[in-house]
Amino acid sequence: MTKNNIIIIGCGAGGGTAAQFARKTDRKASITIFEQTSFPQYSKCGLPYTISGDIPEIMDLIEFSKEWFEKARIDLHLNTTVDHIDSEKNILYVSNENNTKQEYEFETIILATGASPFIPPIKNIQKNGVFPNGVFSLRTINDAQNISKQVKKGKHALVIGAGFIGLEIAECLHKMGMNVTIIEAMQTILPQLLDSDLSNQIQKHLEQYITIKLHHFVKDIQVTNNQVTHVYVEHAETHEKLTLPADLIILATGTRPNIRLAKELKCTIGSSGGIVVNNKSETSQKNVYAVGDCTEFIDFITKKPVPIGLGSIAVRQAIAAGVNAAGGQYELQNGVLQTCTSEFFGLEIASVGPSISQLEELKPIVGKHTGSSRPEYFPGGKSITCKTYIDSSTGSILGARAIGTNAAQRINTYATALLANMNIETFRTLRTAYAPPIAPTLDTVTIAADIAATKWQRKRSG
Amino acid sequence: MTKNNIIIIGCGAGGGTAAQFARKTDRKASITIFEQTSFPQYSKCGLPYTISGDIPEIMDLIEFSKEWFEKARIDLHLNTTVDHIDSEKNILYVSNENNTKQEYEFETIILATGASPFIPPIKNIQKNGVFPNGVFSLRTINDAQNISKQVKKGKHALVIGAGFIGLEIAECLHKMGMNVTIIEAMQTILPQLLDSDLSNQIQKHLEQYITIKLHHFVKDIQVTNNQVTHVYVEHAETHEKLTLPADLIILATGTRPNIRLAKELKCTIGSSGGIVVNNKSETSQKNVYAVGDCTEFIDFITKKPVPIGLGSIAVRQAIAAGVNAAGGQYELQNGVLQTCTSEFFGLEIASVGPSISQLEELKPIVGKHTGSSRPEYFPGGKSITCKTYIDSSTGSILGARAIGTNAAQRINTYATALLANMNIETFRTLRTAYAPPIAPTLDTVTIAADIAATKWQRKRSG
Repeated sequence: MTKNNIIIIGCGAGGGTAAQFARKTDRKASITIFEQTSFPQYSKCGLPYTISGDIPEIMDLIEFSKEWFEKARIDLHLNTTVDHIDSEKNILYVSNENNTKQEYEFETIILATGASPFIPPIKNIQKNGVFPNGVFSLRTINDAQNISKQVKKGKHALVIGAGFIGLEIAECLHKMGMNVTIIEAMQTILPQLLDSDLSNQIQKHLEQYITIKLHHFVKDIQVTNNQVTHVYVEHAETHEKLTLPADLIILATGTRPNIRLAKELKCTIGSSGGIVVNNKSETSQKNVYAVGDCTEFIDFITKKPVPIGLGSIAVRQAIAAGVNAAGGQYELQNGVLQTCTSEFFGLEIASVGPSISQLEELKPIVGKHTGSSRPEYFPGGKSITCKTYIDSSTGSILGARAIGTNAAQRINTYATALLANMNIETFRTLRTAYAPPIAPTLDTVTIAADIAATKWQRKRSG
Repeated sequence: MTKNNIIIIGCGAGGGTAAQFARKTDRKASITIFEQTSFPQYSKCGLPYTISGDIPEIMDLIEFSKEWFEKARIDLHLNTTVDHIDSEKNILYVSNENNTKQEYEFETIILATGASPFIPPIKNIQKNGVFPNGVFSLRTINDAQNISKQVKKGKHALVIGAGFIGLEIAECLHKMGMNVTIIEAMQTILPQLLDSDLSNQIQKHLEQYITIKLHHFVKDIQVTNNQVTHVYVEHAETHEKLTLPADLIILATGTRPNIRLAKELKCTIGSSGGIVVNNKSETSQKNVYAVGDCTEFIDFITKKPVPIGLGSIAVRQAIAAGVNAAGGQYELQNGVLQTCTSEFFGLEIASVGPSISQLEELKPIVGKHTGSSRPEYFPGGKSITCKTYIDSSTGSILGARAIGTNAAQRINTYATALLANMNIETFRTLRTAYAPPIAPTLDTVTIAADIAATKWQRKRSG
């Protein structure tokens, strides 16, 4: 057995990046990856855009090819499932596509097993664990390819779940000419991310293009000749029933971390259901690291565990796991900023900081402003709304949301303030870059902060 | 005489804003403004875009009308020049357009006298202090209106000075169909702002549209029937001579602070030529404040005085002056971040931190990266270059430059890091918002920081 024998399970953004950084750190280490699917590291976030054709070639999503891993002397096994791990003997039992079984010894293991789509309790949604024709989740290249085959102009698509991914898919299906309806169980779209005022603002915009049914559950689906044709929907309170035509159903109802192997390794599982890791990506077990969607990590502000669902965080955790597993030193900041963004139907939305319910628990002071990307006198300015949440006793910034032009870049500015534990009194003095074609003298970013700071001062003096 | 009698000289962004905030702070104060021109507070930065027609109506630049000031019970005197101030008796001597003279007593004075265009030593550029036809600087509404009358498609325009304003005007004249040549005395465009590698990158882009002559001086101009027709240009080193046709000449050679009245008030003038003010906008004289382009202030990083030439800073200084003059409390941060941006010929450029020569004096470690606004696999990504400068001993961020898509918003992220005195080790852990249509997993902002941090670590360990 070679020294520094690292085995990585899963070759998504987490596993692939961990392998890369392990190789960078130790040029001689033996590094092996087992990946269930037939594809090496690719971008899951890009999948919806292969359906709309924005990304014309789905194989372009592959960020590092099988050859790339070979060149880096990383032993990548595709189509290979890890069946069982013996944590006493440090032996891994795998089987490949031909059901050939093999055993591997390991010194160090990195779990990058990802997450699986959550299947909501809908009658007839699966038969023996298999969806009928027309029903999909969207998590893999195969899913995207299969969905694309079912996309038909003028037909009815139903998306279950109005989070970022549901709304991204909705736009892509709309672009392909389908009649799209979104069903969301909660009372607003993007319920985990946004206050109702911001959700309502976005909803109004989306309803120009698609139908949105809030506070509704899908109870049952009608399947004829193994093809879905209709869904039966019920209002969450009134229990009023609706039948909707549906040629295509996409489940965008979140994911659950894949922790089967972590349990075999006796890793501690956290309250959100993910593997508990520290800021070196170490689990509770010696020489076992975990990264990405199979883990949970603490939020930077609340210090409470949150599930990891962001590629950008998976990549950072993977850098830490890869470097540390190979004998280097890499520590992440103490918690995740949860910076995220999405764009659909021409609207950019971005966020940093805890989920909206966690923010609301902190009873923050809020500053909100809607402005323009240009001074009033310069035609062509685009709308931008910023909202910032500050601690009512200390005045420190807890989080922010932005909707509109360059929302993501504006949120990065707030993210830097969060990272610095910056007080709103300091942040409001920020002088942003100003030029008439680009930005007004006072950017919405700082005006929202000014409003929050003024409220905070008033509270302190009153 | 009323209590809290505040007199403001100048009604640009500085003077107008100071008046507003004085009024907000003290509803009963007597507030008087004297303004030389016939226009109340308007955006000077918008002037070039009235020439190109991007701003169709020049009077839209007026941000606060005469009526607005009346409503706020601010006594605004347009077309009124302050001839002299008696600092012993606290009396101001003014004359209006009809040369009627008046005297005003004051308790508190706010100088917002701005700056005047610098006229370079060019033969025949003025006759008795007056330009010949076709020669202009661009500082006022009248200047812009007069330039617009001389703009003719197919004719030759010559812009002297390749700073932001020179390049903005060059684009506007090009848009109007003129043949534009820029003459710059230094060896690169934007010489105060950028390293030569970034300047050269921009220059190549601009030369698709206009002619740029670097390291050249305009020595003389040919005037026939009081109309400019040609300029005589000389290379700064070889002294090679050129004659260039010029129907229109714009001087974009910087400004000099207007400090005549400040001298009468015995205010200390600083090394850069501006009035010295502290972070309450106080001058060296009791009850005399100064704001905007007539002042100098310390740079946030170097703590050395820099001339103020940015509307965004003038506005902040004015808030401080207005609030403090009216008996409130307002302090600015200790120094200016010098955040600035501009856009011309489809290229966005932004900067934060000291001028390039001041940065270079600090012998910084530099991280530079050119990336895309989208992941590689998503077509339509736009180029973005970021460069960050860090202290070679402490690793703290000293400044940054960005060229390309959303450069200004990216620079605001760096500006927040500067404001927090953030170390590159912390900044590199920033997780920026990621979504395929909007931004790659690792933004160029953080990759440039990563590169700088790696160099810095290497230097420390080697």
